[in-house]
Amino acid sequence: MISKNKIKFINSLKKKKYREIQRIFFAEGEKLADELLNSSIQITQLFATKIWLDEHSKKLHGQKFEIDEISEKELQSISSLTTPNKVFVLAEQPVHDYKKENIDSKLSILLDNISDPGNLGTIIRIADWFGIENIFCTPESVDLYNPKVVQSTMGAICRVKVHYTGFEELIDTYNKKNGFPVYGTFLEGENIYTENLTERGFIILGSESHGISDNIKPLVNKKLYIPNFSDGKATSESLNISIAAGIVCSEFRRKTFYSK
Amino acid sequence: MISKNKIKFINSLKKKKYREIQRIFFAEGEKLADELLNSSIQITQLFATKIWLDEHSKKLHGQKFEIDEISEKELQSISSLTTPNKVFVLAEQPVHDYKKENIDSKLSILLDNISDPGNLGTIIRIADWFGIENIFCTPESVDLYNPKVVQSTMGAICRVKVHYTGFEELIDTYNKKNGFPVYGTFLEGENIYTENLTERGFIILGSESHGISDNIKPLVNKKLYIPNFSDGKATSESLNISIAAGIVCSEFRRKTFYSK
Repeated sequence: MISKNKIKFINSLKKKKYREIQRIFFAEGEKLADELLNSSIQITQLFATKIWLDEHSKKLHGQKFEIDEISEKELQSISSLTTPNKVFVLAEQPVHDYKKENIDSKLSILLDNISDPGNLGTIIRIADWFGIENIFCTPESVDLYNPKVVQSTMGAICRVKVHYTGFEELIDTYNKKNGFPVYGTFLEGENIYTENLTERGFIILGSESHGISDNIKPLVNKKLYIPNFSDGKATSESLNISIAAGIVCSEFRRKTFYSK
Repeated sequence: MISKNKIKFINSLKKKKYREIQRIFFAEGEKLADELLNSSIQITQLFATKIWLDEHSKKLHGQKFEIDEISEKELQSISSLTTPNKVFVLAEQPVHDYKKENIDSKLSILLDNISDPGNLGTIIRIADWFGIENIFCTPESVDLYNPKVVQSTMGAICRVKVHYTGFEELIDTYNKKNGFPVYGTFLEGENIYTENLTERGFIILGSESHGISDNIKPLVNKKLYIPNFSDGKATSESLNISIAAGIVCSEFRRKTFYSK
């Protein structure tokens, strides 16, 4: 049985304002609960059906967080999903840091005002797959702990570090000193399939509706595009941002590991 | 001013059952309206705000479909979008056919029980970008004219042909005669980056939750996978189906056009 106060608290976390005050986020479903239980992220409370609790009794033994058994019906009243899913956790928002030398020697993704939560979550999952440890988002971007973002990472949120910061200073720091590669995706530029791609650098992806911002464009020193293959016929104007992210990451990794 | 009967009719089209009876679908927003107006798909009715109608008076001149001016408020009452968008059209569901020789000499995508409308729409957009004319879906897949599918194609629905059919007979037809390549994406198989990829064939993608069905697996003669680059660390179990579709299509086209 879950108290009215707890339900109120959980529902407040659906709003960014309250998430920022509490520094707590919530995650739903077996996949995410499993990933969080196996991660270094601190769970503060777990709500689950009796069946799930019985199945996971070993894993839950000795855990320090609060555990509540709840009914399917109660789960439904707090769930954001159309098909609520056995288990629901509250967890602390981790504070991520990054080492300058890690950024300097590896690939990172920069998302310039990304607005769709599904896209952000999907790109975090892509970064995880392709071994990209750090994603930077402009402060205007959608919040990492928006429930739809958390959901669509499918657990990758436990591994990939997402930082919010302005881009001008960030890029300047790396760019000025040693000609750091700053890639950006545009509708024109160098063909990504034939261009030399490095093992380190920033990959900037623009927002869904406006592309890369005007103040960031001049900081890009390697413009890339994904050619279309419409054979001269009319075609779509662009690819969805998360699809572009997937293709770009794939091509960077292929070139580094498989093109020799 | 839009009549109550029209509103009722439009709302009925949000259900697959009524769409199938009427053979009509609806599409919202300026981008989709523009694409439909420039396509061979028959629009039957168009609803728009005065501003939009004034801006498009030339294009609308002499058109045979019904045109209704409606207010922002009326638009809101029929829209499925959170931000309703000036214009709204009803159109006939086109009847698509395909030529056997086109399938025989080109790449086609086969979606085995795809269920998420956003994924289907996004894959149609990917197919459009990469010049893939035909997509086949199993009859159990999400409906092409689901409003969320239409929306997420961003107009690609006007160009890519989507067919619903069982896969066993379809694959057998091509496969038996001439060793037609039938690719499938799995979590193991041949590394897509190093494997020889042909200019023609079927690319089968499995459903979001169950992958490629057991009865279809034996029909695949080239198993492919997209390697991950987690360097031995824990990582995501898989990529989202539309991300996988994007990477796979990109790699087929790159190999054919840029790897010589």
